[in-house]
Amino acid sequence: MIRFGVLGAGRIGKVHSATIAANPKAKLVYIADAVPAAAEQLAAQTGAAAAGVEDIIRSADIDAVLIATPTPSHADLIEAASKAGKAILCEKPVSLSVGRINACLDTVAKNRSTLMIGFNRRFDPNFASVEARLRRGDVGDIEIVTITSRDPAPPPAEYVKTSGGLFRDMMIHDFDMARFLMGEEFVVVNALGSSLVDKAIGAEGDVDTAAVQMQTASGRIAVITNSRRATYGYDQRIEVHGARGMLSARNIQATSVELANADGITGDPVQHFFIERYALAYANEINAFIDAVDAGNTSPHPSGFDGLQAQKLADAATTSWQTGKPVTVS
Amino acid sequence: MIRFGVLGAGRIGKVHSATIAANPKAKLVYIADAVPAAAEQLAAQTGAAAAGVEDIIRSADIDAVLIATPTPSHADLIEAASKAGKAILCEKPVSLSVGRINACLDTVAKNRSTLMIGFNRRFDPNFASVEARLRRGDVGDIEIVTITSRDPAPPPAEYVKTSGGLFRDMMIHDFDMARFLMGEEFVVVNALGSSLVDKAIGAEGDVDTAAVQMQTASGRIAVITNSRRATYGYDQRIEVHGARGMLSARNIQATSVELANADGITGDPVQHFFIERYALAYANEINAFIDAVDAGNTSPHPSGFDGLQAQKLADAATTSWQTGKPVTVS
Amino acid sequence: MIRFGVLGAGRIGKVHSATIAANPKAKLVYIADAVPAAAEQLAAQTGAAAAGVEDIIRSADIDAVLIATPTPSHADLIEAASKAGKAILCEKPVSLSVGRINACLDTVAKNRSTLMIGFNRRFDPNFASVEARLRRGDVGDIEIVTITSRDPAPPPAEYVKTSGGLFRDMMIHDFDMARFLMGEEFVVVNALGSSLVDKAIGAEGDVDTAAVQMQTASGRIAVITNSRRATYGYDQRIEVHGARGMLSARNIQATSVELANADGITGDPVQHFFIERYALAYANEINAFIDAVDAGNTSPHPSGFDGLQAQKLADAATTSWQTGKPVTVS
Amino acid sequence: MIRFGVLGAGRIGKVHSATIAANPKAKLVYIADAVPAAAEQLAAQTGAAAAGVEDIIRSADIDAVLIATPTPSHADLIEAASKAGKAILCEKPVSLSVGRINACLDTVAKNRSTLMIGFNRRFDPNFASVEARLRRGDVGDIEIVTITSRDPAPPPAEYVKTSGGLFRDMMIHDFDMARFLMGEEFVVVNALGSSLVDKAIGAEGDVDTAAVQMQTASGRIAVITNSRRATYGYDQRIEVHGARGMLSARNIQATSVELANADGITGDPVQHFFIERYALAYANEINAFIDAVDAGNTSPHPSGFDGLQAQKLADAATTSWQTGKPVTVS
Repeated sequence: MIRFGVLGAGRIGKVHSATIAANPKAKLVYIADAVPAAAEQLAAQTGAAAAGVEDIIRSADIDAVLIATPTPSHADLIEAASKAGKAILCEKPVSLSVGRINACLDTVAKNRSTLMIGFNRRFDPNFASVEARLRRGDVGDIEIVTITSRDPAPPPAEYVKTSGGLFRDMMIHDFDMARFLMGEEFVVVNALGSSLVDKAIGAEGDVDTAAVQMQTASGRIAVITNSRRATYGYDQRIEVHGARGMLSARNIQATSVELANADGITGDPVQHFFIERYALAYANEINAFIDAVDAGNTSPHPSGFDGLQAQKLADAATTSWQTGKPVTVS
Repeated sequence: MIRFGVLGAGRIGKVHSATIAANPKAKLVYIADAVPAAAEQLAAQTGAAAAGVEDIIRSADIDAVLIATPTPSHADLIEAASKAGKAILCEKPVSLSVGRINACLDTVAKNRSTLMIGFNRRFDPNFASVEARLRRGDVGDIEIVTITSRDPAPPPAEYVKTSGGLFRDMMIHDFDMARFLMGEEFVVVNALGSSLVDKAIGAEGDVDTAAVQMQTASGRIAVITNSRRATYGYDQRIEVHGARGMLSARNIQATSVELANADGITGDPVQHFFIERYALAYANEINAFIDAVDAGNTSPHPSGFDGLQAQKLADAATTSWQTGKPVTVS
Repeated sequence: MIRFGVLGAGRIGKVHSATIAANPKAKLVYIADAVPAAAEQLAAQTGAAAAGVEDIIRSADIDAVLIATPTPSHADLIEAASKAGKAILCEKPVSLSVGRINACLDTVAKNRSTLMIGFNRRFDPNFASVEARLRRGDVGDIEIVTITSRDPAPPPAEYVKTSGGLFRDMMIHDFDMARFLMGEEFVVVNALGSSLVDKAIGAEGDVDTAAVQMQTASGRIAVITNSRRATYGYDQRIEVHGARGMLSARNIQATSVELANADGITGDPVQHFFIERYALAYANEINAFIDAVDAGNTSPHPSGFDGLQAQKLADAATTSWQTGKPVTVS
Repeated sequence: MIRFGVLGAGRIGKVHSATIAANPKAKLVYIADAVPAAAEQLAAQTGAAAAGVEDIIRSADIDAVLIATPTPSHADLIEAASKAGKAILCEKPVSLSVGRINACLDTVAKNRSTLMIGFNRRFDPNFASVEARLRRGDVGDIEIVTITSRDPAPPPAEYVKTSGGLFRDMMIHDFDMARFLMGEEFVVVNALGSSLVDKAIGAEGDVDTAAVQMQTASGRIAVITNSRRATYGYDQRIEVHGARGMLSARNIQATSVELANADGITGDPVQHFFIERYALAYANEINAFIDAVDAGNTSPHPSGFDGLQAQKLADAATTSWQTGKPVTVS
């Protein structure tokens, strides 16, 4: 029985708490939040108790912490939990600073802590199936990975200010997905970006529309496009072309219903946003972490290294966009 | 808070118990099963207590019973629960005998009991969306309803012996769906049946492959086809053609992944069977019943009358198949 | 080089004449029409000469006649051409009377004439592929054949008067398709019909909405539905379910373009009507006839017998609809 | 009546000659080829006469020339035909040298000749529909254009030697399509390329796998990926994302047939290569040229300027790939 403390009772903290509470191998013991009432309410719903962050991390009653607090606190909390000997599942990113990630991972390594990073999309059943079939060889040698990722609507410009920018805040998921699917590191990153959706985002020095192409040492290519707006829902597609075929995962529509009439044949928009689209992914992610801890697997994936590599690619893309030049990643 | 007693801890009793336990408006209090250990195990998993059927029905601690026992006990349990003043959700069918259903519904009517019948497919989000759009007028006047329903694999021939036959055991769901979609009663039923899948089924005097066409008083037509076997999974499709267009709900594949190669473009088989395909339908059904009881709605749908009418159509189809003649339904 | 006389310069006569003119194994020599100017115009466009029907049939300059005149003249023209020793391709039906068809086929048999009936849909590349794969065993033993056929808009009620009724005029194609796909004769026919689209059709004693279910001696089942109206275009679909899988052919949309927005994902309506949908089928049909004659194959398919059997099924369906009883076909 | 001389009786010359011969507004008069027998054979099939290139260009009997000869001769033949006062339809590219194109277009401009360049894909009904709907505003302001283009199998390495390389030989079509769809010129070009399909192509200093991303002055982005091999057929897809929605055109499969069984649901591979996929596009292209000349439109599209701009983008991509740096296009 893995006993959990959840740090952060916001939207994603709630989703994860429900999964932990429903997993027979786990027990949700404590919940913390900067707003105590939020922690108390979630605790009441899940049969847990509200407590302070420090107390939870130090508590002898818990085996694992789930970090779902705001990004700036992630690295500190990972280190504290690592020192306290807890297994750690931390939402992405560890930090917006590669240097800070490196320091944090050093601590984790020194303490031989179990650390998993919350790149939830790896656990989407569709994308996970594509990856498993790639590793099995269904398309032979991989040649081109294509990732399309568009949010239904842009965030407020204020959010953008502290987000680290589109490449670090939004495309970070796609960088991880590209590495996950490709199975080889990227060495060159080329980025283009524009502010076409909301000029206020451009005014904050960020972009809302972007394309990145990357290449591995062996010449394989990945192409990512992002937009902060898609009128038809949360656009999340992958496609992998190889020597023997192509594997793809389409969008998922809200229902399978179609209306045919003189205007054409119309199906539903795609699932609205991440809460709907990745409901199963979030649950599978938590359950995979619980299985890993339960089985004594101290190096689950996505690992701290995966978090580091995705951040490096996001930094490289940001620099490439800013300088108008390709950036080499070591 | 609606307090529940669940009668029957088999496959579907487990599914429903989990939904009741997770609904904040409901409390799962007691579980009964002919095998006491089954009731105890499910009770332990859901925070309920095991008890006897009679004790549960009489208990002052419960407001509603969910009947998920074998078919022959349904009518008796509905009557007992009705007399005890409980709200009742009963798995289909009330009885294989129309006479017995009528008697049971008389008791329910006399006691003004709340009774809902478990035609789960009405709560599938896809089919429910089609029905809502039909009522909204998306296709204008309905002309033809087409229902395709195929199980992945046939049941054992022994099961068939006591099932009432394909029309009462399997197509009963499609009769209810046809009424649900059409919104008008059928007056003529024509049935064809064959044993093509498993000769042992034919040897028991039943069919495993069947087609039914029905007509309403105003001339609208419904067509249903059933097979006890589909190699590609649980085939569950509907299509409604009207004066202004066609609404349809496709099958749902296990994932959205496709492999393209020299053999063609291949997606997953459709979801395997009812536990996967109708997971949401089962949950929505229970939650709709809880909402109805909570809101004081004493005549939720599908009603006892819906159960009666579907059974009449199943009887008519059975007779039509046996006699080779159309059967008029009053 | 097969030298052709075309009888009838209407819509379908024009389509076929263009195909004959373009086939290097054939030569379009003469064209006849009740309206001489129509024959002359088509002859001018195709490099042929206008002539009278009798002259064409008797001419030593032609090897084959294509009969695309109104239905009442078909049987007489087949017999005349048979007596003149010509190979014959006749549009469906040979006659609305089974007795007249039998007499006509006797003449054809006596003269050992080559006769092919224009059930064009057998030559649609999609449906032809399904049939070829059925014969190859792709789905194992066939169990259920489903055919959906809906015209975009109803004909004028006056047309209906002399058409023989929906079962003989429209569903005749589906009866042939059901036989083509099933590969076994039907012995029982059950029909339902209504006038839901246009009351004027009902006033003429005909139906515009119909369903037929048929069974073979071995118990296999076919289901056909027809409507005289479909707002989304010419609905032409088939589906064959067997012991090892299901083969289907979808509708074909005007383009592959889709628009995704907040209203959903919308593709084009399906191809409008037979001229678009079956353009390739018409060409393949003519070319198959030319190949057969060129190769000395004197019994091409669909044969006169195919025409006879489809007509018997249409008669049986008409009777079943009128009497409300199943009809046995010998 | 536009009288045509066709220069080049190879694969594409044959396709175009058939279209000209079938168009009632045009007359195919002469055909030339470096192999006189090829010209004679095609002339015999189409009712034309074989003649020499020079004679055709100078002939008073023709109004228009179609240039379907090898690339190195294109610019010279355009100039000769321009001087002779003929309307010109020339297969892409005008020349592999931008300087040579400029000189050639000067001649065309001086003589006010009608010149159209054979970017056939603009005339594909699916892509043409997307473009028309973009111009109509169906997706609002365009933000991202995505083009996927993969050949079924790589050409021989010898072909590659003189082709100008993948960016000029294959992606040139996609550069034109990107301009066609975007409706704004590109100012920055970033290219990545690899030899993953056939090492012999890499040994010739070319690539067989490539990605290009481009940006317009207003910040709009286009992404193109190419491969010289796709096991599932000729992969030709476009997608345009805008402020109000997304328009896309899918691949076209050989038939609409699907087989469903335990292995999944399998449709046909996509149409094999350009002869099948773009059959309608080729015909529509020729007919559009004939319509333009017939209507006295002396500046049909795609124009010589379109040919020039696509070539500039191909040169820029080649340089970007070779230098590893973005290239600015004026």
